[in-house]
Amino acid sequence: MTSALAALAPEPGSVDLLIDLAAKDMAGVDVLIVQRMQSPVAVIPALADHLIAAGGKRLRPLLTVAADRLAGGHGDNCLKLAAAVEFIHTATLLHDDVVDGSQLRRGKVAAHLIWGGAQSVLVGDFLFARAFELMVDTHSIQALDILARASRLIAEGEVLQLTRAHDLNLGQDVYLEIIAAKTAELFAAAAEAGAVSAGASDEARNALRNFGLNLGLAFQLADDALDYGGETAALGKNAGDDFREGKSTLPLLLAIARTGTAETAFWQRTVGNLDQTDADFLRARDLIVSTGAIDATLDLAAVYAATAKQALSIFPANNWRKALESLADFSVTRRT
Amino acid sequence: MTSALAALAPEPGSVDLLIDLAAKDMAGVDVLIVQRMQSPVAVIPALADHLIAAGGKRLRPLLTVAADRLAGGHGDNCLKLAAAVEFIHTATLLHDDVVDGSQLRRGKVAAHLIWGGAQSVLVGDFLFARAFELMVDTHSIQALDILARASRLIAEGEVLQLTRAHDLNLGQDVYLEIIAAKTAELFAAAAEAGAVSAGASDEARNALRNFGLNLGLAFQLADDALDYGGETAALGKNAGDDFREGKSTLPLLLAIARTGTAETAFWQRTVGNLDQTDADFLRARDLIVSTGAIDATLDLAAVYAATAKQALSIFPANNWRKALESLADFSVTRRT
Repeated sequence: MTSALAALAPEPGSVDLLIDLAAKDMAGVDVLIVQRMQSPVAVIPALADHLIAAGGKRLRPLLTVAADRLAGGHGDNCLKLAAAVEFIHTATLLHDDVVDGSQLRRGKVAAHLIWGGAQSVLVGDFLFARAFELMVDTHSIQALDILARASRLIAEGEVLQLTRAHDLNLGQDVYLEIIAAKTAELFAAAAEAGAVSAGASDEARNALRNFGLNLGLAFQLADDALDYGGETAALGKNAGDDFREGKSTLPLLLAIARTGTAETAFWQRTVGNLDQTDADFLRARDLIVSTGAIDATLDLAAVYAATAKQALSIFPANNWRKALESLADFSVTRRT
Repeated sequence: MTSALAALAPEPGSVDLLIDLAAKDMAGVDVLIVQRMQSPVAVIPALADHLIAAGGKRLRPLLTVAADRLAGGHGDNCLKLAAAVEFIHTATLLHDDVVDGSQLRRGKVAAHLIWGGAQSVLVGDFLFARAFELMVDTHSIQALDILARASRLIAEGEVLQLTRAHDLNLGQDVYLEIIAAKTAELFAAAAEAGAVSAGASDEARNALRNFGLNLGLAFQLADDALDYGGETAALGKNAGDDFREGKSTLPLLLAIARTGTAETAFWQRTVGNLDQTDADFLRARDLIVSTGAIDATLDLAAVYAATAKQALSIFPANNWRKALESLADFSVTRRT
């Protein structure tokens, strides 16, 4: 498995270049995040902090900051938009974990298992509203437009995914439509909002949006591969969650196609009917690895990562651009 | 019970004056609502339509339209803001029904019982995002500010209410804080957004906000009284839901205080521990009516309704003002 994951993408890539370059800006984003998750209703900051303090890589707000800086921005509005993007992301995580019944998130027990699903739904709503309050503070109708649309597309993608779960014959086109909406649109919007806060040209704005969109597709494809090929401890969430929920992700769809009629009964029982034992996940993982479905998924991720890097070619080859290019490589080669 | 409800508020009031006056504008709002709840993901319009087509009184969007017209507005932006307000309201209903496990809404089976809680949460998110897209279309940062803040306060109010459920000793001040946040803030914001779309003066804007806030308080107090005094068929939701969920509403809190130690064990078992039979609701209702808790709740509602009407005194006594005054009376005297 590990070798399957390691075999691809020529450059290992890293998020560290970007983290170093954006350190001061991200410190400002963190201050905003902590400030704006406060509430006189004590359970709100407690629940939000459980998830937000657990960290994660803060990829989406990093994208907003980096897009602003690469497009020549020097102001602070991108910090507010970055915090808004992280709030939207956190709100969707809270709602998704309730929807999926997930047990683990960012290496911690999922919030709904501590505070209950009701509070998770409502604190998600709180963070979503706070995100829009932060955007309003920037007085940018364009940024509001971009992130409202992305928020709507995320919800559409999540509903579509839920509707098409357990579908053994889901087309690759529908799978890509789902991950574009539920994941890549927020990456695209995060970068586009950064471009807008910098007052970028339409060309630069479109380039950064395309970078984010393709990066998001690569990121989600790798995520779906890691769910069969990664280790729970490194992921901060349970490997195998997608299988247990019967999510029709690309590694699974490819393995179903490639194992043919020999395994139809197995896939129908475990994914179609969600009638599973723990041993079934191990067998599914073996089939997915042995049919090359993980490699094929990561190959496709590498194509999107390359497209993302290509989108940056209109910018000077400065440190911000190099850091984003390294992030694109990392999106495919990461283990977590 | 019915006589207790009928005894108050000198004017019966009606929403019909406002419905007639705003008929053409509200037809425009309905067109927007139907347009903007569409999605290529078929379950979204199906679920949204289940709730939205069921109607309800559309009080909040009516407020936005009426506030705009009373403040001298003639444009169409208030229609978009009104549709946004209805979407925010519908989103909160979808989430609340999941949170509360409610069975009935607007006379129909609650959406989460048909499509599942997950889809209700996600379609709520969709409608919330669509609300912000509609606001963005008006290019009004002020309206976005008002409605983002209201959305955040609603979530805070809902969390606070959930945190303080089953609390037999909840203070009346905290109860009022909860209903101000979870209900009255959206009435206030709906009216204020209408004022803003009309380009109203600060004085007119504040007056309309105060009208909405006090109307919302009256409306929720009457709602909480109806939950013990109303009929399920007329309400479109189950009478007794608050009792079954252990919600600490004013009629209950007053009855607990007024029945004293004689009923401590009853209230502790049924509300504190949620250990109930159907007969317990009937007994609770009898205690609430016989102690005058319904009358006292409606008396307080009448005070807020009067304050709401007073806030309109700066406006000319035209048909819009008269219709809003009648709505204020109706908020207390209504049976549904």
